[in-house]
Amino acid sequence: MNDKSKKVPEVVVKRLPRYYRYLGELLKQDIKRISSNALSEKMNVTASQIRQDFNYFGGFGQQGYGYNVEHLYSEIGEILGLHDGDTTVIVGAGNLGRALASHDTFEKRGFKLIGIFDNDENIIGTSINGIKVMSSDTLEGFLEKNRVDIGILTVPKAAVMETAERLVKCGVKGLMNFSYTELNFDKDVAVENVHLSDPLMTLSYKIKQNKNGE
Amino acid sequence: MNDKSKKVPEVVVKRLPRYYRYLGELLKQDIKRISSNALSEKMNVTASQIRQDFNYFGGFGQQGYGYNVEHLYSEIGEILGLHDGDTTVIVGAGNLGRALASHDTFEKRGFKLIGIFDNDENIIGTSINGIKVMSSDTLEGFLEKNRVDIGILTVPKAAVMETAERLVKCGVKGLMNFSYTELNFDKDVAVENVHLSDPLMTLSYKIKQNKNGE
Repeated sequence: MNDKSKKVPEVVVKRLPRYYRYLGELLKQDIKRISSNALSEKMNVTASQIRQDFNYFGGFGQQGYGYNVEHLYSEIGEILGLHDGDTTVIVGAGNLGRALASHDTFEKRGFKLIGIFDNDENIIGTSINGIKVMSSDTLEGFLEKNRVDIGILTVPKAAVMETAERLVKCGVKGLMNFSYTELNFDKDVAVENVHLSDPLMTLSYKIKQNKNGE
Repeated sequence: MNDKSKKVPEVVVKRLPRYYRYLGELLKQDIKRISSNALSEKMNVTASQIRQDFNYFGGFGQQGYGYNVEHLYSEIGEILGLHDGDTTVIVGAGNLGRALASHDTFEKRGFKLIGIFDNDENIIGTSINGIKVMSSDTLEGFLEKNRVDIGILTVPKAAVMETAERLVKCGVKGLMNFSYTELNFDKDVAVENVHLSDPLMTLSYKIKQNKNGE
């Protein structure tokens, strides 16, 4: 049952990966405990914001001496569903598709890339990161035989809607869309539209602010 | 002078590119006016949030019958500094660097890519999107002769800190970092650390929520 009163705001959800990454860094440095104040300083979020965020998930029981880093890392990973072994396919094996296929962080976060598809005869059959590129024509057949949770779309803008619909029809439950368009599906299909020019625009804003502040 | 009382929260700044993109879409559809309610529905942000966000910049004078789309688009573009013609270089001409160099949205947003650098002899001298890849050894010389506002870093993680420092030393005021690390500079150098696995983790969360909600 979906308890709507407990719905976590999008802005909090978007902060979870950042907490997760940062806690992973602490673990690597063999840091066992961290206070919300220390976490706050490092992450540039107020300590009360952190406590508020964590309260959506039960608070993770901070005692007087801080959070247990390993426990918190594991809990947030669980909340993010990173222990579920979600499988992915990449559709579109151009430069961006190739870059993402070789992005070892995806695997480190628990995602399993199990297929890469393209419609270019020159690319089909070549290997990227040990995976052979398959013809887009075989997409439905592949999806019938293999459970795929997430489709990563790096096809040209003109092809994205059709590709997305083919994936969804075959049961794919999440789409990561890099095609500079806004995909929207019914709420049973999750979509993240990634706009690579957004951080560039944010940067432009900050540079302008810095100039004006001089 | 930097008026700290007027500092716009990061979360509002991050929404500006979205507003800008969305208004651009409206313009393409030849829509001249939009109410904050209609904008709110399309963007999945409350109308009061939109008014609050816009109030940081003087409110853009919504009358009873809505915002003037073209005016609002132009104003937000101005605030984002997109009319300043910021110049960029890409350091690291692997798959991701190549994908970004061919990303026509960057140019559409007003950014001018004027140089691409790599240290691989096999890549130096090849052309990407009409721009010849130069040797990383020539970076300082190039930056002395050309004003570069933003450095886009698509080098391996191990090389990112050194590369960033070289750029900053030569006067680059903004860094877009794709190297799965958190770069931090003094506040006169703006940094956007782009973590491509963050939207994938958010997606995983949403898929899990959808499953639990069934």
